[in-house]
Amino acid sequence: VSDSNDFAVRFAALEARVQRLEDESQIRRLIASYGPAVDSCTAEAVVDLWADGGTYELQHGGYTSETIHRIVESDLHLKYVAAGSAHVMTTPRITIQGDTAVVLNYSTVFVHASNGWVVDRAAANRWDLERTERGWKVRRRVNRLVDGSAAARDLLAGEDPPPSVPG
Amino acid sequence: VSDSNDFAVRFAALEARVQRLEDESQIRRLIASYGPAVDSCTAEAVVDLWADGGTYELQHGGYTSETIHRIVESDLHLKYVAAGSAHVMTTPRITIQGDTAVVLNYSTVFVHASNGWVVDRAAANRWDLERTERGWKVRRRVNRLVDGSAAARDLLAGEDPPPSVPG
Amino acid sequence: VSDSNDFAVRFAALEARVQRLEDESQIRRLIASYGPAVDSCTAEAVVDLWADGGTYELQHGGYTSETIHRIVESDLHLKYVAAGSAHVMTTPRITIQGDTAVVLNYSTVFVHASNGWVVDRAAANRWDLERTERGWKVRRRVNRLVDGSAAARDLLAGEDPPPSVPG
Repeated sequence: VSDSNDFAVRFAALEARVQRLEDESQIRRLIASYGPAVDSCTAEAVVDLWADGGTYELQHGGYTSETIHRIVESDLHLKYVAAGSAHVMTTPRITIQGDTAVVLNYSTVFVHASNGWVVDRAAANRWDLERTERGWKVRRRVNRLVDGSAAARDLLAGEDPPPSVPG
Repeated sequence: VSDSNDFAVRFAALEARVQRLEDESQIRRLIASYGPAVDSCTAEAVVDLWADGGTYELQHGGYTSETIHRIVESDLHLKYVAAGSAHVMTTPRITIQGDTAVVLNYSTVFVHASNGWVVDRAAANRWDLERTERGWKVRRRVNRLVDGSAAARDLLAGEDPPPSVPG
Repeated sequence: VSDSNDFAVRFAALEARVQRLEDESQIRRLIASYGPAVDSCTAEAVVDLWADGGTYELQHGGYTSETIHRIVESDLHLKYVAAGSAHVMTTPRITIQGDTAVVLNYSTVFVHASNGWVVDRAAANRWDLERTERGWKVRRRVNRLVDGSAAARDLLAGEDPPPSVPG
């Protein structure tokens, strides 16, 4: 009995480790799905990334899970798409704690110009994620341009993001 | 006996989950191997990424597994290498189904210029992969510049790529 | 007894496979932590990535684990931070062998300018890592600009890096 109990404990521990790796895999896929969704103007694919009530907070304005479908219709976005754009999400630094996770990475937007592509945006991103019935989703994404201001540096230093402002 | 059967099922399920994570790890490594191979002009390392009979389809022309070694000898490539180039593959969005997988990502080519580096190419990529006796390999890679045309957007939206054109 | 022995072997093999995946996860996080650490000038977070006695070797000079905290105080770095910078580490190609690992990737530094961002550096990186009591850490990082010289191509081809030069 003792052996079998020991073993049940060891097996459950291994299952938990595999679950943790699967969580990370799903989070990585979530982040990697943003670019293809916006660059192809697939509004429903963007919406699907957010948790109900989740937010996307940019420096000037933002979106909620109820308005995020409009992101592919904004003037800036339509300009990007007409020119040709690649919203590249860089390798995420993932920290999982149970049913929530924090991800830090950069987003860079490459836009086609007369001679090659220009980097029209480079921003620090903090993603607060949560495990939902639909899988890992975005509770809150904060995006701050790396333009020399403290806002991006604070995010990258791991400080808590500023209070949420409804979009 | 029932316990032991239950357990065998649970163990096999966990083994399958670990296999799935290993598949993803190998696919990620495959994608991450392309840049170092071409930027160092290591033709055999490029060839090794493709499945027998696999293709690499660009907007103007392409390669098969039998001709892909020539990619490091093309005029454009030699110009890149002389200047200094980095073929960067962005975080792949991986979808595995049994022995095949579909990957979406962007490729960006940074080329050294008089003052820093320019982005000479930014493209959407769809990779159709398959598990072979040599591990996960490329059955088909389709590359479309993000230049405002529909071709890249269609790939990123998840639509099937156009019929294959032999290189 | 034979069954139970067989099973113990199978279980240990699965544990080892999971450990290997966890090693990779930790290595990926190590690489993804470099950018946020330097771009936020968090010296202690940079120091924490290196093994005791580890080195960071650039083309002109370098650092050891004892001097690496100064990297966020260099003239070039202060210029980057004042303008706004994103040190982006691209998807790593990871090769693990027991308690050591070799990683190849590119680093690109995006710096804010009057009109968007410029790519001020693009370099090939080889990271020699080791498992320490504090987790996976950098024993040696070699960084070579992709500027057409052979140094970057040799790193990307998988050749051994040049003899270490103390920083």
